[in-house]
Amino acid sequence: MSLLEEALKSITPADKDAIEKSKKRIDNLTKPIGSMGTLEDIASKMAGITGKLYNEIYKKNIIIMCSDNGVCEEGVSACPQNLTRIVTNNYTRGITGVCTLAKYNNSDITVVDIGVKGEFNNSKIINRKINHGTKNMCKGAAMTKEEAVKAIEVGIEMVDNLVKQGYDLFGTGEMGIANTATSAAVMAAILDCPVDLVTGKGSGLTEEQFSTKKSVIKKALDINKPNKEDVLDVISKVGGFDIAGMCGSFIGAAKNKVPIVIDGFISYTAALCAYRLNKNVKDYIFPSHLSKEPGVEYAIKELGLEPMLNLKMRLGEGSGCPLAFNIIESALYSMNNMATLKEASVEGDFFVDIREEN
Amino acid sequence: MSLLEEALKSITPADKDAIEKSKKRIDNLTKPIGSMGTLEDIASKMAGITGKLYNEIYKKNIIIMCSDNGVCEEGVSACPQNLTRIVTNNYTRGITGVCTLAKYNNSDITVVDIGVKGEFNNSKIINRKINHGTKNMCKGAAMTKEEAVKAIEVGIEMVDNLVKQGYDLFGTGEMGIANTATSAAVMAAILDCPVDLVTGKGSGLTEEQFSTKKSVIKKALDINKPNKEDVLDVISKVGGFDIAGMCGSFIGAAKNKVPIVIDGFISYTAALCAYRLNKNVKDYIFPSHLSKEPGVEYAIKELGLEPMLNLKMRLGEGSGCPLAFNIIESALYSMNNMATLKEASVEGDFFVDIREEN
Repeated sequence: MSLLEEALKSITPADKDAIEKSKKRIDNLTKPIGSMGTLEDIASKMAGITGKLYNEIYKKNIIIMCSDNGVCEEGVSACPQNLTRIVTNNYTRGITGVCTLAKYNNSDITVVDIGVKGEFNNSKIINRKINHGTKNMCKGAAMTKEEAVKAIEVGIEMVDNLVKQGYDLFGTGEMGIANTATSAAVMAAILDCPVDLVTGKGSGLTEEQFSTKKSVIKKALDINKPNKEDVLDVISKVGGFDIAGMCGSFIGAAKNKVPIVIDGFISYTAALCAYRLNKNVKDYIFPSHLSKEPGVEYAIKELGLEPMLNLKMRLGEGSGCPLAFNIIESALYSMNNMATLKEASVEGDFFVDIREEN
Repeated sequence: MSLLEEALKSITPADKDAIEKSKKRIDNLTKPIGSMGTLEDIASKMAGITGKLYNEIYKKNIIIMCSDNGVCEEGVSACPQNLTRIVTNNYTRGITGVCTLAKYNNSDITVVDIGVKGEFNNSKIINRKINHGTKNMCKGAAMTKEEAVKAIEVGIEMVDNLVKQGYDLFGTGEMGIANTATSAAVMAAILDCPVDLVTGKGSGLTEEQFSTKKSVIKKALDINKPNKEDVLDVISKVGGFDIAGMCGSFIGAAKNKVPIVIDGFISYTAALCAYRLNKNVKDYIFPSHLSKEPGVEYAIKELGLEPMLNLKMRLGEGSGCPLAFNIIESALYSMNNMATLKEASVEGDFFVDIREEN
């Protein structure tokens, strides 16, 4: 049995009993029932993940999957392909958006070369290169099915290793010129929905470039005819190593029973793939922000994981994760430390009375 | 000239030149232009507030205005009136929602008794009591115009004092049973819109109680006939000391050129009042979360301050502010520390080329 098959088989749903106990405990804290909304839900969901009623995060890590996409040569991005390499390198210099946001929120980052074109001479980049970029999906499959499985397994292994190092909250990031095009292709294929609905302008395209992008995605789907019921077929034909690797990170988190956070469009695409491979994966995933790319709406609808932040971001990199980390940690701290109704009603027991009436 | 008149007169718009310079600087950082959305806007807005391109927050404080509302006797709340007193006291014990969220996010809180019924024997509560609760607005004005001005001035003075102590980012919180009813009344009056549109279920009402609440608000507006063009008339007739005090905090922040964060419905109502008294106040205000109370939508529309968080919270207390503080501080840290395109393009100058083409 492959590592992927083993991982998928080992995933179990969240601990429903712990979730119920957590909800009951939270309903007894000094506030109107449900008035802290998503913060309450976060604490209960976390109880379901760990099986414990009181949870706390010790070490955070954003796993950034970096790779190139052959379809880049069709002109689907405003950026030249070797920007993938430059930015991947810059992640290790701490100077990009996700680096600064992660640092401010005490999160580490892990930079994985899962398929960047060219070689790095940088020990801070983990070399798990599947290939030097994918093939152009307009001319055939982007990668072999074996490569897709291998890329997903890289994601699983990354989480396996980091969990051993004590990390207990993960984020998902990426870098790969043209990966909003591959994500749109995967999303359109899996959801069986029109390309126009799930395709956005990525890092900034002119109307003409945008129109090219949509045609290219349509062509890729037309040539490859991915089987929407077969996630591995879809990823290998019109996906990317980054999407596959991130899909693996989601699976790895669920396998290890640790929480993991979605970032933007590419991340939502990977989460959707992971969910389709094993529905229980969802129990371990937290959303972060609402990306400006239109495709995310469809993934949100199926996953039922509504973004907590609306910051009109469309950077990728995993940049939404550090902000979600703070919300998650704030929620846990708050639910761990608020008093119960009884403890709070020092001068009478009205709050307790209300509670009992409801 | 009264303290309020003086404050209103001294408020100037944000520094537009600094905003422009900040935007230009941010457009030159290593990311597609605008891709960090609201985080970029926060940094530029802050530049407009302080006049500096690089900003950093040193000390944060959430000012919580606590007071009682005479209209409580009409049965508009699910909670008994003396809960105001209990919860106000609990703020000083660090055990409520806002206390725990503030602590996790390194913010202090300031608890102000601006009109709670009864006396406290608690040195941690600042006694600026205008009166022992307002009068029942269904039977006449909730307070005199003099009391309204005095309550607003308490808010201004609180910010004045805290700025002297080095606080440079503020939040706004409250406690006051029945204050979603007074807020709905103020909102309906000021916006000249139907009570049904701006009234919600507060801390949790049955359908019958909800219907009572709306009738009571309509009655109060009918009896008092507040002049929608006169904010002080509206606040004194159908408002509360808490709303007035928070309105003062917004004015105080603008006067002192320090940023201040809106929380939920009551806070949006106070912000709208402050904005109507001096439009420039808006330049100093940051939103936080989207409250579940329906009335906020109308305030958001007029203020143009769209919430950054959607957490389905309806607790009040100022509980949305600590989470917004983290977003603001993350944004500032990120924009201060990201590399420029030139610094980032170590292996070529493609990013710079793209930048110059746009």
